[in-house]
Amino acid sequence: MLTEQQIHTFMGAALVEAKKAYALGEVPIGAVVVLDGQIIGRGFNLRERFEDPSQHAEFQAVLEASRQQKSWRLPEAELFVTVEPCIMCAGLLQQARIKTVYYGAEDYKAGGVHSMYHLLEDDRLNHQVEVHQGVRATEASTLMKDFFKAIRIRQKAAKKARRQREDQN
Amino acid sequence: MLTEQQIHTFMGAALVEAKKAYALGEVPIGAVVVLDGQIIGRGFNLRERFEDPSQHAEFQAVLEASRQQKSWRLPEAELFVTVEPCIMCAGLLQQARIKTVYYGAEDYKAGGVHSMYHLLEDDRLNHQVEVHQGVRATEASTLMKDFFKAIRIRQKAAKKARRQREDQN
Repeated sequence: MLTEQQIHTFMGAALVEAKKAYALGEVPIGAVVVLDGQIIGRGFNLRERFEDPSQHAEFQAVLEASRQQKSWRLPEAELFVTVEPCIMCAGLLQQARIKTVYYGAEDYKAGGVHSMYHLLEDDRLNHQVEVHQGVRATEASTLMKDFFKAIRIRQKAAKKARRQREDQN
Repeated sequence: MLTEQQIHTFMGAALVEAKKAYALGEVPIGAVVVLDGQIIGRGFNLRERFEDPSQHAEFQAVLEASRQQKSWRLPEAELFVTVEPCIMCAGLLQQARIKTVYYGAEDYKAGGVHSMYHLLEDDRLNHQVEVHQGVRATEASTLMKDFFKAIRIRQKAAKKARRQREDQN
């Protein structure tokens, strides 16, 4: 059983990963996998850079943990991720038999474990994952809001510059 | 729009992939991705061999197609898979903006697109995938049944041999 302090610290490590994605212009989501109190997998969103639809933070972190453990089954592992997992990532956590997921901000448009579906708590499936939401949620959602705000500002500036060029011609 | 003959042929290619998994002792599921009438991705289940929870047939086929197209978006691509996609794979098809999925046998215990969930037709999500089921379903399910029957026979034989050794001691 993790303490409140450990949960805070591990989500901090996931937030560090999210900031790496931000710095590369990727949607800022980060994740870490923890086993026996140690981080055994880290990841951040790299979908655009790799042109790979599966390069979400959770995939990188879980697959690194799987390589480290030399097993596709991680029944004692816990995942920390800054934003609610999507359907694909929820499916991965179920496939990998992850024990627990802690996440920060909700994803109302695509969340697969709380906002839109409760895929990890479906007792018709052969494995369930314990879900804890709202861990350092404000920090995670502030990162996301800042990221999308910056995109909108850049898009607006580009549009304005385009109009000015058109007016000059 | 694909003809009935094309659909039959492409599912045949997916069945060839499934048989490769069978030969390696992996759950026999195969997939191909088709774009403009050409196969641009192939895959079969290799979860045990690679000790990787994401190594389902659909992942290999879609990620190969993504590399070939140098894009995480595959909005004109069609996927053929011998068995109904699980939740994780349904999520991938949605993430990759796949146009259509054709599958063979139902997966009543874990199917994410028809049997247990209809994840690809949820109009709250930012993309929907057209789903066609039952394509060459008997061939796909016969492969699966034969595979699991062979496992049960091996397990029974191993149990019998163990008992005989114990009786001799």
